[in-house]
Amino acid sequence: MRLSQFHLHTTKETPADAEIISHKLMLKAGMIRKLAAGLYTWSPLGLRVLRKVERAVREEMDAAGAIELLMPTIQPQELWEETGRWEKFGGQLLKIKDRKEAGYCYGPTAEEVITDFARSELSSYKQLPVNFYNIQTKFRDEIRPRFGVMRAREFLMKDAYSFHISEECLGREYQNMYDAYGRVFTRLGLKFRAVFADTGAIGGNASHEFHVLADSGEDAIAFSTGSDYAANVELAEAVAPGPRPAASEAMRKVDTPTQKTCEDVAALLGIGLERTAKSVAIMGADAEGNPQFVLALVRGDHVVNEIKLAKLAGLGDYRLATEAEIVEHLGAQPGFLGPVNAVRPIRVVADRSVAAMADFVVGANENGFHLAGVNWGRDLPEPEVADIRNVVEGDPSPDGHGTLGIARGIEVGHVFQLGRRYAEAMKCTVLDETGKAAVPLMGCYGIGVSRIVAAAIEQNHDDNGICWPEAMAPWQAAVCVINPKKDAAVAEAAEALYRELNAAGIETVLDDRGLRPGAMFADMELIGVPHRVVVSERVVAAGSFEYRHRRASEAENLDRAGLRIKLGLAG
Amino acid sequence: MRLSQFHLHTTKETPADAEIISHKLMLKAGMIRKLAAGLYTWSPLGLRVLRKVERAVREEMDAAGAIELLMPTIQPQELWEETGRWEKFGGQLLKIKDRKEAGYCYGPTAEEVITDFARSELSSYKQLPVNFYNIQTKFRDEIRPRFGVMRAREFLMKDAYSFHISEECLGREYQNMYDAYGRVFTRLGLKFRAVFADTGAIGGNASHEFHVLADSGEDAIAFSTGSDYAANVELAEAVAPGPRPAASEAMRKVDTPTQKTCEDVAALLGIGLERTAKSVAIMGADAEGNPQFVLALVRGDHVVNEIKLAKLAGLGDYRLATEAEIVEHLGAQPGFLGPVNAVRPIRVVADRSVAAMADFVVGANENGFHLAGVNWGRDLPEPEVADIRNVVEGDPSPDGHGTLGIARGIEVGHVFQLGRRYAEAMKCTVLDETGKAAVPLMGCYGIGVSRIVAAAIEQNHDDNGICWPEAMAPWQAAVCVINPKKDAAVAEAAEALYRELNAAGIETVLDDRGLRPGAMFADMELIGVPHRVVVSERVVAAGSFEYRHRRASEAENLDRAGLRIKLGLAG
Repeated sequence: MRLSQFHLHTTKETPADAEIISHKLMLKAGMIRKLAAGLYTWSPLGLRVLRKVERAVREEMDAAGAIELLMPTIQPQELWEETGRWEKFGGQLLKIKDRKEAGYCYGPTAEEVITDFARSELSSYKQLPVNFYNIQTKFRDEIRPRFGVMRAREFLMKDAYSFHISEECLGREYQNMYDAYGRVFTRLGLKFRAVFADTGAIGGNASHEFHVLADSGEDAIAFSTGSDYAANVELAEAVAPGPRPAASEAMRKVDTPTQKTCEDVAALLGIGLERTAKSVAIMGADAEGNPQFVLALVRGDHVVNEIKLAKLAGLGDYRLATEAEIVEHLGAQPGFLGPVNAVRPIRVVADRSVAAMADFVVGANENGFHLAGVNWGRDLPEPEVADIRNVVEGDPSPDGHGTLGIARGIEVGHVFQLGRRYAEAMKCTVLDETGKAAVPLMGCYGIGVSRIVAAAIEQNHDDNGICWPEAMAPWQAAVCVINPKKDAAVAEAAEALYRELNAAGIETVLDDRGLRPGAMFADMELIGVPHRVVVSERVVAAGSFEYRHRRASEAENLDRAGLRIKLGLAG
Repeated sequence: MRLSQFHLHTTKETPADAEIISHKLMLKAGMIRKLAAGLYTWSPLGLRVLRKVERAVREEMDAAGAIELLMPTIQPQELWEETGRWEKFGGQLLKIKDRKEAGYCYGPTAEEVITDFARSELSSYKQLPVNFYNIQTKFRDEIRPRFGVMRAREFLMKDAYSFHISEECLGREYQNMYDAYGRVFTRLGLKFRAVFADTGAIGGNASHEFHVLADSGEDAIAFSTGSDYAANVELAEAVAPGPRPAASEAMRKVDTPTQKTCEDVAALLGIGLERTAKSVAIMGADAEGNPQFVLALVRGDHVVNEIKLAKLAGLGDYRLATEAEIVEHLGAQPGFLGPVNAVRPIRVVADRSVAAMADFVVGANENGFHLAGVNWGRDLPEPEVADIRNVVEGDPSPDGHGTLGIARGIEVGHVFQLGRRYAEAMKCTVLDETGKAAVPLMGCYGIGVSRIVAAAIEQNHDDNGICWPEAMAPWQAAVCVINPKKDAAVAEAAEALYRELNAAGIETVLDDRGLRPGAMFADMELIGVPHRVVVSERVVAAGSFEYRHRRASEAENLDRAGLRIKLGLAG
């Protein structure tokens, strides 16, 4: 491609409403242009990158045996009513009435449509297993679309749905897709982690998210430094610490007139934060379903995990206690609460790490006072023990190998065992080997194609712009020609190199716009072309080329053979 | 591709609601499946064909210098209000409210979005000319979606929009696109015609439609047998015939008690239909805008062209006259009307061919009577003359070369000079060479990608199914293996041929489903694979292959070299 015949529209201004780096750089590089909230036009430059991601996804899906089809973007209301999702999906579902007042939605996902397809087209176990995928535009009416294509309303997604007669078969395809996803992200040159995920309200048996790692990621991921283990921080198990030490101090009341946080109390007492316990007052339900006051205890340096807490008996719908409820049960104001000397009977749930503490500090249930030297069994009854905290860096890995590190990630893929939920609701059956109608098991597998573009930038950029991994770059190499109109030999040398590289399979762009070198180099760095070759009067005279890799700090002069080797060609 | 690992779902039933052959065959071949009115899922088989069309369109657009981008399917109401089309577009525009009650539509076309893109990204004449295209899903809320993907509501379209500083430049790009479209349809192996089209209400200077020729086409096309001239029948000029012969008969009243049509009168009188003139009574407006009774005359064997009629002064909003108006002005009932002896003053518009008649027959304006031997100038004043009829087969071509034939066509492409209409309405300007803001001229160029699939079938089918042109076929060749499980040598020979052909660049499918020959051959004929090779015990023993082209009536036995030559490979 010659840039003079392309439409490149970079800008120096930093867009005011762009909050994250990928959004800023995509706007500055002119990859996308906002049409309306959460709606973006992909410019010719942006589309080149998007298509590379799309192609990588398609080729790996094909190689893994999935079969591509194409479902409409507009889906009828009736199908969504069959699964109950017409009402349940919530505000993200863009509902539409056509000219005959019939109800439709813009598909945010396609479980209903594919299950409808399957119940028409699949009749026998002999047609199974089968995995259908499509790469199609989706729409989610985000309440607050932002971050450019990272959280756009209209986006490009690859969604696949597999059908199986047995759990074992579903498990095999799940692993097949898990492996294919790994190949997609590896091939795109991205650092990523497959993260064990919550199956949440949808039910189903297994689920992994694929995250591109980036400091700006929305999700915190706990990963083992000694194994493949990775999980969302909120889901990673905080394993039980070693046995509780013996008590060595007497319980005593300490004066903490204005110290209402563990941090302040620890500072006042000159002890480590890990010797204090934080009391979180909540309202749950007892076995009969009556309201029950509960004190959840985590170490002062830990954070309560609401998801884990809500999984405990009676806490499925817990809420924070009101100040009146707190005073009624504990006799003190927030800031001085603890499990000792409650005014009324309460339930105490201690995190595993709190249950393993001795000689610890808690609120005294008396305004202005804490208790130090507290010990379980002696000063208060042994508590109910559970894992109710977020893991932190340095915790032992739950799989027993290594310790946990915390990284941030951007979810770009998801594999999920759906089970029979959709097929059952939509009366999709096939005849099994015995000739009986059987409801097939389903798996679903998504990749956010357009989101990968933004995630890759979050992971690969510097102060000058985007640093594309080779496989995602709009072009692998740029030939920048200086003053082509002044010197025909320079123009010819650039043209020859441009042709040579393209012929050798290196996608190369010729910057023949006639810009001054600074502006040209700034553009090529901003749009992130991995290899830059400058052809100027000077280098032509010297019989060399000026080469610079996008991530290198300096340019170097190379002869033709040296340049070819840098580009991965035979010298 | 091995069919055992594909999803092919053909059916013998003829779908009840499919009215046209392409719809029937696409359903029977399992290329598409209906999701809801005008919404179709493209099965894996259908998608293979759709992608081939898409690729041909993309490659020819790229080769012609157009630049691909990707616009969202959902477009904001504000933009459509800027051009006034939010109200004017009519019921086909699918209007949507998002969760914040903001107005959007599902784009049926993208003039507004591309002009918005252009006014942001184009600032100088130096960036012009430029031609942006995208291949994107569109939606038109057809009041009566039918004919499968031929008139679906959601469909795939290539739309391109070019920007120019001068009429000359627009004209050049128009020709460039015209030529590129010809290459697309030629490459796809389709018989087509570029048809001069009406620019209609949109205004603009030039417009051609591209029609795939098929007997079932909705549009009638007049084409010259002696040149490239082609036009919609409704637009083709009916040229003036030779000079009027001299009068040779006296005008006389003839008794036609029950003869109310030209056909009946001609039969009664024993004359040719071309010697009669049909009178169509309509109401137009005179120069002051008052209602005016008009008699439009065409030859008995011709048909009035409403579009041409409406272009005449005073007839822009014409309507048929009521019986009361007819009786008031002519004194007779319909069936006996004519331009002679009107009761009140009327306007008479004669088609060119009527103006050239002598001794002709018209109604007498007296119930039960006609006049014969009528002559202009003698029996009634010379009329106003205009081209107000449809051309018919055998008319001279308007370009002076050859005569006209009539064919039926399916519109699959459209090129159009838009002029400044959109750019002006949306205040899109660029600086011209003198530094002044200039409103660019635009062209737009559409191709109905999904519609081409159906149109190709209308043109290429027989009683057994689809006969794809090579370039559109899901696979070029099918290797059908008979009883592979019984005979390992047969399975091996088929596998070897399958690999050999694919390696040679012939997209080949291996039918390894183990069906009996009849069912397998019926499937391959239905889905239209051009080349079929059968590998069976018999042919393996004979050291040959059984080959049949989809359009051939019989199979033939060929050795390997002969087979390769049939497939276009070196023997």
